[in-house]
Amino acid sequence: MRAVSILGVGSTRFGRHDEAAIDDLAAGAARDALADAGIEPERIGALYLGNFVAGMLTGQEVLAGLVGEAIGLGGVPCTKVEGACASGGIAFRHACLAVGAGLTDAAIAVGVEKMTHASNPRITESLNSAMDNRADAPSGLTFPGLFGMAYRLHAQRYGTTRDQVSSVVVKNKTNGLSNPLAQMGANLTTQDVRDSKPIADPLRLYDCCPASDGAAAVVVVARDMARGNDDAVDVRASVQTSGSARIAGHPDLCSFDATVNAAARAFDEAGLTAQDLDFVELHDCFSIAEIIDSEDLGIVPRGEGGAWAGEGRTALGGDMPINTSGGLLAKGHPVGATGLSQLYEAVHQLRGDHPNQVHDARFGLTHNLGGTGVACTVSILGRPDA
Amino acid sequence: MRAVSILGVGSTRFGRHDEAAIDDLAAGAARDALADAGIEPERIGALYLGNFVAGMLTGQEVLAGLVGEAIGLGGVPCTKVEGACASGGIAFRHACLAVGAGLTDAAIAVGVEKMTHASNPRITESLNSAMDNRADAPSGLTFPGLFGMAYRLHAQRYGTTRDQVSSVVVKNKTNGLSNPLAQMGANLTTQDVRDSKPIADPLRLYDCCPASDGAAAVVVVARDMARGNDDAVDVRASVQTSGSARIAGHPDLCSFDATVNAAARAFDEAGLTAQDLDFVELHDCFSIAEIIDSEDLGIVPRGEGGAWAGEGRTALGGDMPINTSGGLLAKGHPVGATGLSQLYEAVHQLRGDHPNQVHDARFGLTHNLGGTGVACTVSILGRPDA
Repeated sequence: MRAVSILGVGSTRFGRHDEAAIDDLAAGAARDALADAGIEPERIGALYLGNFVAGMLTGQEVLAGLVGEAIGLGGVPCTKVEGACASGGIAFRHACLAVGAGLTDAAIAVGVEKMTHASNPRITESLNSAMDNRADAPSGLTFPGLFGMAYRLHAQRYGTTRDQVSSVVVKNKTNGLSNPLAQMGANLTTQDVRDSKPIADPLRLYDCCPASDGAAAVVVVARDMARGNDDAVDVRASVQTSGSARIAGHPDLCSFDATVNAAARAFDEAGLTAQDLDFVELHDCFSIAEIIDSEDLGIVPRGEGGAWAGEGRTALGGDMPINTSGGLLAKGHPVGATGLSQLYEAVHQLRGDHPNQVHDARFGLTHNLGGTGVACTVSILGRPDA
Repeated sequence: MRAVSILGVGSTRFGRHDEAAIDDLAAGAARDALADAGIEPERIGALYLGNFVAGMLTGQEVLAGLVGEAIGLGGVPCTKVEGACASGGIAFRHACLAVGAGLTDAAIAVGVEKMTHASNPRITESLNSAMDNRADAPSGLTFPGLFGMAYRLHAQRYGTTRDQVSSVVVKNKTNGLSNPLAQMGANLTTQDVRDSKPIADPLRLYDCCPASDGAAAVVVVARDMARGNDDAVDVRASVQTSGSARIAGHPDLCSFDATVNAAARAFDEAGLTAQDLDFVELHDCFSIAEIIDSEDLGIVPRGEGGAWAGEGRTALGGDMPINTSGGLLAKGHPVGATGLSQLYEAVHQLRGDHPNQVHDARFGLTHNLGGTGVACTVSILGRPDA
């Protein structure tokens, strides 16, 4: 497999997009990524589209082909990939694979979701298709319920406090305020989080990411094609793993095997350690998820995720800035787009033009987690001069 | 990319499977393929799952992860791919890609669909998600409607007759009678087809494939691993293309660009011509589709598909046997499984143990077409000694 780079990225604003159809949103982000890469559509040899619930929420499938046609790719292979909330990361990994394997010199990964038009029960129902429904639907389990249990367990085992968990929300909402693409940045206090309405005890409203519309895209090219381009970013690792879709497949709710395994392999592939990273964009679908993910990725010692968050060590300027984009909590979570949005944000950090810039960022990691950890991707990006 | 081979195949019976959940069906076919390959699950490094409408019809996504866990794959990447009715062929192509690129020495492609529990309107609605719904839904177009128009145009342009089209049905239903996995083999006359109830004029009931439940799976390995195994079959070509999801994107309804392009590239990749083939399994979602596909693939001269069918030249023992399995019309069409079912049937032809064996079959082609030709895969398989 040859080395690959990211040459261009695009992202819509996340939030409500009543005016745009789902394929228009995706095509818009894809065109932005092509323009950013300075590459003609004719040079793209494969498209991967990450999407989760378009069938259920919009009645439209074959999005890969629709978007490929819309952006003028001709007859090249266009493939939708699905791994619940990790669908975007999986699309990116496959664009890297297509280029890495030499099938084409350039590929595009696009992610999209359109959710805000649907009713809340319908959204919950569609998201629940990410669980093993025979195993877990009869109990009435939902994702807020699952992460609520994880929160309670983490608090009991490690002494993680309400204020520590809330500090994740405060940080990400603050970061979102400066991100023009974010759905709901806000100035909040830990008390605001504590006072927001209960969703699945102990999770409150502000602990949960919103339903979102949005799209993001990344153009991947052979490393040779990217040489001399100041905006190019090296893909140092792109790893995909799987885990259990059943709650009983996770004897420890405070950790997701798929993340642990993906991170270990990604660091190995990149020849780097967590200490080499300058920032991380991770899958904070809930506040407690950021704490668990930070431990699973090995960037925070096990059990200390709450303390690190509470002490500001994961804030901009801290030891390891996490989710300077605002993350899923503030930028939003249009499911299929999220993994590619994280890469969009990471690329801008490494180019040095992020609205919440980490000083002299050289290496960054992105982490995209699906469902109950049934699918995971971890990517490590680096500046070409790093 | 290194050469790859098929080491094992599995297929459930197609038809109604009220007793089995969708992931059980898929896992069953996958286990059969692993057993057929004589390979332990621990050696499989990637799973691709082809599925189209499980979200809409069963409320269950993340099927790739569910099936990977059920068959004991551990944490290897498990990815659902979707390209409407070509989803199974796309899964196979990606298993070939993963092995060909050296990511793993063995991968499994699984395809599955469960449809028969749903109401007819719900099935039609879900299948229509394969069209560009903004462009074509307002007209009331359905797939029987689209292929009805193609039939009428083909008849006007080339003089294709009702009896010629019916002879496709008679042939495939007869082939299905000897296939123990087929949903609805039958002894029919062309008059029976003509007399069956109208669906979308001029298409009659027997011109249309049924709604089906079923699964199929294929184990792909590096060619080196297959040497000395009498049951192994060489993958000579595996190609994926795209086309338009809108009817206006097809100025000629008597041909699908995606098929024409995929076939040309597959023959090139395989270093073979249509004359080298001993049999073809193609995407006969409707009787007229078999005629169009046979022309698009270049195995029958343009406009002569009806004549070839009517003269028995595509029957077992004819110049080019098509769909000795019974095809979609008789074996059935559990959408995501179909592309892999075709490969299952082709592998048994090349092993020499097919219930409708083509004498001394050395090379076979499979063709899987999605929606309005929005996605297509063509594979060419060969006996290792060919």
